[in-house]
Amino acid sequence: MREVAVIGIGQSVFGKLPQKTVAELGSEAVAAALADADISAKDIQVAYASRQYNAWCTAQDILKEVGIRNIEMVNVENTCAGGSTAFRGVWKEIADGHYDVGIAIGVESMTTSPIAGKMITPEKDDLDGHLGMSMPGMFAMVARRQMEQHGATVEDFAQVSVKNHRHGCLNPQAQYKKEFTVEEVLNSRMICEPITLLMCCPNTDGAAAAILCSTDVARKYTTTPIRVLASTLLSGDYKEFQKDITVSPLLEKISKMAYEMAGCGPEDMDLVEMHDAFANEEMLRYEDLGLCKRGEGVALLRSGATEIGGRIPVNPSGGLLSLGHPLSASGIRTICEIVLHLRDEAGARQTPNAKVGLAHMHGGVVAGLEHGIVAGIHILAR
Amino acid sequence: MREVAVIGIGQSVFGKLPQKTVAELGSEAVAAALADADISAKDIQVAYASRQYNAWCTAQDILKEVGIRNIEMVNVENTCAGGSTAFRGVWKEIADGHYDVGIAIGVESMTTSPIAGKMITPEKDDLDGHLGMSMPGMFAMVARRQMEQHGATVEDFAQVSVKNHRHGCLNPQAQYKKEFTVEEVLNSRMICEPITLLMCCPNTDGAAAAILCSTDVARKYTTTPIRVLASTLLSGDYKEFQKDITVSPLLEKISKMAYEMAGCGPEDMDLVEMHDAFANEEMLRYEDLGLCKRGEGVALLRSGATEIGGRIPVNPSGGLLSLGHPLSASGIRTICEIVLHLRDEAGARQTPNAKVGLAHMHGGVVAGLEHGIVAGIHILAR
Repeated sequence: MREVAVIGIGQSVFGKLPQKTVAELGSEAVAAALADADISAKDIQVAYASRQYNAWCTAQDILKEVGIRNIEMVNVENTCAGGSTAFRGVWKEIADGHYDVGIAIGVESMTTSPIAGKMITPEKDDLDGHLGMSMPGMFAMVARRQMEQHGATVEDFAQVSVKNHRHGCLNPQAQYKKEFTVEEVLNSRMICEPITLLMCCPNTDGAAAAILCSTDVARKYTTTPIRVLASTLLSGDYKEFQKDITVSPLLEKISKMAYEMAGCGPEDMDLVEMHDAFANEEMLRYEDLGLCKRGEGVALLRSGATEIGGRIPVNPSGGLLSLGHPLSASGIRTICEIVLHLRDEAGARQTPNAKVGLAHMHGGVVAGLEHGIVAGIHILAR
Repeated sequence: MREVAVIGIGQSVFGKLPQKTVAELGSEAVAAALADADISAKDIQVAYASRQYNAWCTAQDILKEVGIRNIEMVNVENTCAGGSTAFRGVWKEIADGHYDVGIAIGVESMTTSPIAGKMITPEKDDLDGHLGMSMPGMFAMVARRQMEQHGATVEDFAQVSVKNHRHGCLNPQAQYKKEFTVEEVLNSRMICEPITLLMCCPNTDGAAAAILCSTDVARKYTTTPIRVLASTLLSGDYKEFQKDITVSPLLEKISKMAYEMAGCGPEDMDLVEMHDAFANEEMLRYEDLGLCKRGEGVALLRSGATEIGGRIPVNPSGGLLSLGHPLSASGIRTICEIVLHLRDEAGARQTPNAKVGLAHMHGGVVAGLEHGIVAGIHILAR
């Protein structure tokens, strides 16, 4: 297998943008990535695109806007890990020598999706869903366990949101560039005790794209190719998750796979972008990804280590909570953020001297988690 | 790259089955494929699944039913070529040495899809769609050109349907096992002049699955591995298609790629399964796939060569017209049919002494063909 590098990244505006089509959002990200790589559309040899809702020929729909046609295009879906899946698809194409240059795209228009403004209707065989097991419901139960088992407080949950919103203020592309206090987060509308509105990621429209090529070829385009050290994708077993809802055996497995593939460990990471769909989730992922020991996520948060300027900044982009969460885009958007830091181009939110970063995304069917969960982890290095 | 073989195939019942969930349909096909390969669920190392409508973790949803978890799963979409895309995904995983054994699944529940019983609503930027360019509308225009340019008659169009329905009567898994006369086809309800109801493929629920492994490993499981000689996937350019709507430049390109990869030509094919969503389409595909010269599709049909027992049987399964068309399943179902013939297990519809066969699938966004079209071709050999 050949080493693969990221040579271009791009993002659309993130926000509530129902007036924009998926083709418009996606092609904004693609055009930005092409410009960033300083590469011509005609050099793209393969494309993978991910979209969750109303997905019909997403890659073809987006790429016609920039004149990319007559190549192999694959559309993928893996809930919130859809973007990770698209990135990994292109990575494999290039690593395995099928193509030299390709683009991975993630896009979502949440405001025009069939679930806009609605609770998702459970499928007929989805008993959990019919019993009210929504995403906020599940994360509220998890939060209760964190309070019981790990000594977490509602102030800790609020603090994750405060941190990520503070980070988002430093990101021109964030949906919400507004700081909040712990009190404001706690006093926002109660969604599902103890989860308040400001502990939930918003509905977001947006797209992200990344251009990959073999490291050999990369030197033709850039002096700062960002190497992909590990690409992993794995589906899980919800029954395992049910043993202790504060632990993700899937994430334990896949992060081990990713670190082994990259030849380094969590202690080597300079920054991490991860799935923080609900504020309390972030502390669990610290543990699942090995950034601290099991049960010590609360202490890691309280230490300030995961803030910009801390030992291991987590979600310096603002994360899903502040930057926003266009489902299938997030798996690529997190990679874009890591690339920015590794290139020393992250501006006010730059991680000093960042050499290695990890991008995680993780998803499952909203109601009826029985359907299985899926995760993708990529480790990149300058 | 390693040679890859198909060692197991399976299909669910095809028909109007709104009472069956996608997990039920899919797991019927998967269980049949596992039984056919005589392989254990735990031997499956990677899975790709394709579904067009309401697609959420399709692979995970289906495979939990047979106890397959904790492996890499990728969900893909490429309209009617979605199944081809899933098959090619697994083929690449194995050819490139990532895994030894994998499963490709295609599934669709058309009767519970958001378009069940409806015309598809064009997207806001889809001018063709807003002007009434539905699939029957487009194929009716194509039919008019075939009559004008190629001397086709409405009786020829009807004859394709008569042929494929006759074939479907020999296939226990066909949705419609009923013969029709040319007169009956012509006298069925007019959909869009000259396309009548019996010239259109039906709405179908169903699933298909194929188990692939490296040819080295295949000998462990079967004495009749069916080798994949060519796997191709390509997106097109609708503007090229508009030059002459009786010609698909995309199919001309991809069939050339497939024959080159397989090291053989159309004259070497013993049978072909292809996209016959509308009866008149089949004659065009004869030409696009090189089974005859440009403009000679009508003559090839009239010669009887494409009937079971003819020189090059086309759609011996009954095709989309009679067997049915669960969109994302069809790209794998066509491969299953080719495998049956190459194993000499196709019963009453067997192609005698079949050594090489081609499975084609081809799709595009229903209205607004501007979005680009996509095709997949696989060539298999015993």
